[in-house]
Amino acid sequence: MKKHLFGPYAVLMTPFAGSEVDLAAYEAQLMRTSGTGISGYVTNGTTAEFVHLSLDEQMALSELVAKKKDADKELIVSACTANAADTVRLARHAGEIGARAVLVCPPYYLKHPKAEREAYYTEVADKSPVPVVLYNIPFFTEELELDVIYRLFKHENIIGIKDSSANMKRLMHMVNVTEGSETAILTGTDDILLPALVGGCVGSMTALAAIFPDRISELYRAIGEGNLARAREIQSSLMPTLREADAPTFPRGYKALLERESGIPFGDKEVSI
Amino acid sequence: MKKHLFGPYAVLMTPFAGSEVDLAAYEAQLMRTSGTGISGYVTNGTTAEFVHLSLDEQMALSELVAKKKDADKELIVSACTANAADTVRLARHAGEIGARAVLVCPPYYLKHPKAEREAYYTEVADKSPVPVVLYNIPFFTEELELDVIYRLFKHENIIGIKDSSANMKRLMHMVNVTEGSETAILTGTDDILLPALVGGCVGSMTALAAIFPDRISELYRAIGEGNLARAREIQSSLMPTLREADAPTFPRGYKALLERESGIPFGDKEVSI
Amino acid sequence: MKKHLFGPYAVLMTPFAGSEVDLAAYEAQLMRTSGTGISGYVTNGTTAEFVHLSLDEQMALSELVAKKKDADKELIVSACTANAADTVRLARHAGEIGARAVLVCPPYYLKHPKAEREAYYTEVADKSPVPVVLYNIPFFTEELELDVIYRLFKHENIIGIKDSSANMKRLMHMVNVTEGSETAILTGTDDILLPALVGGCVGSMTALAAIFPDRISELYRAIGEGNLARAREIQSSLMPTLREADAPTFPRGYKALLERESGIPFGDKEVSI
Amino acid sequence: MKKHLFGPYAVLMTPFAGSEVDLAAYEAQLMRTSGTGISGYVTNGTTAEFVHLSLDEQMALSELVAKKKDADKELIVSACTANAADTVRLARHAGEIGARAVLVCPPYYLKHPKAEREAYYTEVADKSPVPVVLYNIPFFTEELELDVIYRLFKHENIIGIKDSSANMKRLMHMVNVTEGSETAILTGTDDILLPALVGGCVGSMTALAAIFPDRISELYRAIGEGNLARAREIQSSLMPTLREADAPTFPRGYKALLERESGIPFGDKEVSI
Repeated sequence: MKKHLFGPYAVLMTPFAGSEVDLAAYEAQLMRTSGTGISGYVTNGTTAEFVHLSLDEQMALSELVAKKKDADKELIVSACTANAADTVRLARHAGEIGARAVLVCPPYYLKHPKAEREAYYTEVADKSPVPVVLYNIPFFTEELELDVIYRLFKHENIIGIKDSSANMKRLMHMVNVTEGSETAILTGTDDILLPALVGGCVGSMTALAAIFPDRISELYRAIGEGNLARAREIQSSLMPTLREADAPTFPRGYKALLERESGIPFGDKEVSI
Repeated sequence: MKKHLFGPYAVLMTPFAGSEVDLAAYEAQLMRTSGTGISGYVTNGTTAEFVHLSLDEQMALSELVAKKKDADKELIVSACTANAADTVRLARHAGEIGARAVLVCPPYYLKHPKAEREAYYTEVADKSPVPVVLYNIPFFTEELELDVIYRLFKHENIIGIKDSSANMKRLMHMVNVTEGSETAILTGTDDILLPALVGGCVGSMTALAAIFPDRISELYRAIGEGNLARAREIQSSLMPTLREADAPTFPRGYKALLERESGIPFGDKEVSI
Repeated sequence: MKKHLFGPYAVLMTPFAGSEVDLAAYEAQLMRTSGTGISGYVTNGTTAEFVHLSLDEQMALSELVAKKKDADKELIVSACTANAADTVRLARHAGEIGARAVLVCPPYYLKHPKAEREAYYTEVADKSPVPVVLYNIPFFTEELELDVIYRLFKHENIIGIKDSSANMKRLMHMVNVTEGSETAILTGTDDILLPALVGGCVGSMTALAAIFPDRISELYRAIGEGNLARAREIQSSLMPTLREADAPTFPRGYKALLERESGIPFGDKEVSI
Repeated sequence: MKKHLFGPYAVLMTPFAGSEVDLAAYEAQLMRTSGTGISGYVTNGTTAEFVHLSLDEQMALSELVAKKKDADKELIVSACTANAADTVRLARHAGEIGARAVLVCPPYYLKHPKAEREAYYTEVADKSPVPVVLYNIPFFTEELELDVIYRLFKHENIIGIKDSSANMKRLMHMVNVTEGSETAILTGTDDILLPALVGGCVGSMTALAAIFPDRISELYRAIGEGNLARAREIQSSLMPTLREADAPTFPRGYKALLERESGIPFGDKEVSI
């Protein structure tokens, strides 16, 4: 097992048939990335619309990945809920199924002062049987402040952060402050893979790693080999696709793209008849 | 049955014992307002921390109120979820237990363009067996725009709005635009009851109606009788209490106040041991 | 001289001819309100587009009002700039021309932490020869926090606040906290005059007092006489006009309304040829 | 003359002595960067606190730079005001003194719908005798939307953008959309120089280029030579300094840093006695 999180993690999406999760389509999504160079999977992330899933549905999806994934790939379970009780419940389940870590966003809907955000993560990290990855996603929930993050990085059960702000200034300072440590700084933004990795990020958790696992793996390899020209070529080729995927309301465009690339149906959750 | 929503509705809070809802405390909360002058109840509202409750827990709480409340009081079920499928599921249940209406906030966490917010409400109102009350609460979810609201008011199954913005300009225009119609404009803010009612709101859905049902009822009566001096006296007496209740992170201060007034324990949701 | 600010103050607008202020039109605007029941004038406010005026132009306009206004009307000079040096310069000039007070917004463009906002006002109040009125206008500059406001109200040279947030909760708490003192709470929002005054505000600083001085004065009189029905009638009649005035980019719609009501040309600032 | 803006531009700061600009200190700041490898200067930018300067003061500072700078360095005049009339006035003056371009932020304090932001820039670009550089700085004024930017890039008198959002996703898409054209994408954020340049930006306009002209020039050279290790070393060495400079309210920390590095006094604007 790697000491650090490292490389591209694929954020899986959730296909629905009516108001129910389509487990067959979900499994097909997983299997088409088998044998590729990605580092692992994130289940029930923002792109997976976790707010549209019950805790039981989320646990079933993570179990499916734990059972069917390649042995050399890691499972990161997104344990994003509105309170510590539910988050720890998901983290305990993640431990039971052998997950590498849980990804935890700040509580949403209700708002919290800074000190409570820090206390929330400390409680979850104290009680989680698996390591915790912080998750900053200010477009959808409250921003995780840098001083809070730096203090949380000292917790022995917190191993890194996924930052989906696309704010390169934040990323550069987090990279700089953790230089030489085992804390992993990962971006959640496909559009900035090249500059983020050159700037010092060690990995990413994104949708394109699920949709184009080979191209994303090749981008990593090119950077690793110092072949910036090739890395630029790949990143550049992804940009028009990303603009297209971002045009509809998130995450519809990413689901449509995966549907088109894979032939697997990726319907949205609908009212039952 | 009244044609309009009217008067003070009490937003019930949720007591927890560990990570479970404390049903006995919840029932005690309900029974202490029996026989008072309030118009009815809202279950599973923002102050009830609906984001901390599963759909099953929410339905159990609404059922309890449906069974135990005074016959002359109305039950409004907050059906606030992140998607139409779950919201309609709650609305159908609300219909089965005889609720007067459902209160529906815009979907949260994931964000939506204006047109989708309108389409969301239209779908929910089309499929809900009971009337829908719009719910604007910009502190926690996306703002419901006035032009969207005005168009939604024409839907035959949408009977009004609870607006918790405390933005009196919004309230005054909504009152003005609906003058002479049966659409009800209600405030969700205890701190502004007097000006909101004098300005034309027909009711309110707030926590203090659950904590101080007699004082809130008297405030309504004073305004109804044109006794502004008495109404001001009551409103003024509530202001320091409200500052105290707002000081901790919402809704902790309101739960603490109810705990103190009623002697009923109102714990927060905790991680199970 | 009144101890308190009190009643409706008219916020004057700025007519341009090309890139220059049209002084004749400005004076005509002033004179058409002579003899009406308004309490006084605010020069160079937000509606007057002070950001489009040099300090010299602002001082010329205030001087014109000081010279030509009715003797029983008060002059409030908006001294809104991005730094204490320029604000105090305007305040000293306001003192020289006999202004009743200056209206001071938080510094804009550059942002400041809370403590610096408080220090800014303290310095301005210490050095201004005339009393200072705080100005909260969160749509355009940083919000003035309630605890900062309450501390500033203890400064002997700070006599009140104009709050243009339309947030009735803020207004109600400011009214409650200053009850029995000489500090004046005024609204800056025409749309909420009735509820704000019934809720305890002692006055207003708004554009409609410049456009419809008689109707606004009558609204105040009706409330003073306890004739709520008449007050509601007037407020209600203003609402469609306000929606129309708010439709174009602020403050264009208010200038167009004044132009239509008065026949005075109210052009915007243009690039010189 | 280069077709493109290119390389590091130094954003000059404004030293005050009391309430007046300290011209001698300003000139000393300029002269200490003479002979260094920077591309040129930006006068009256955000870091120069242009909101604390009259138009006359701004023009005097730009003139000083035009006269005293090295012949091979370009002068970019920040023409940031709240209206087109003042902005065009500064642009015309910039033309008279031989500036390479003007840097124009969206109008501030008053807010504008998207279409008016676009019309504003079109009018300024139509009437400016020198090329216009767009300026996105969402921390202080309204965000310049990407679709507006892409349309404005087609204007023959708009040659690029300075983007100070630190949002790498925006930068990557702007770079991608302008690939092969002469439009220049520049960052305004010292903390992200390395990733921004590797990602495709052709230059920067920042404070550190004025404070450490040699180190910033060397960073550019290292990237140009493909020496990423050296570039990372320099960028990394700047990060703690940047955290220190960002700690006080902007731009005080940057002025203090320049003061310490240069020995030149960099006081803030104060109220005159």
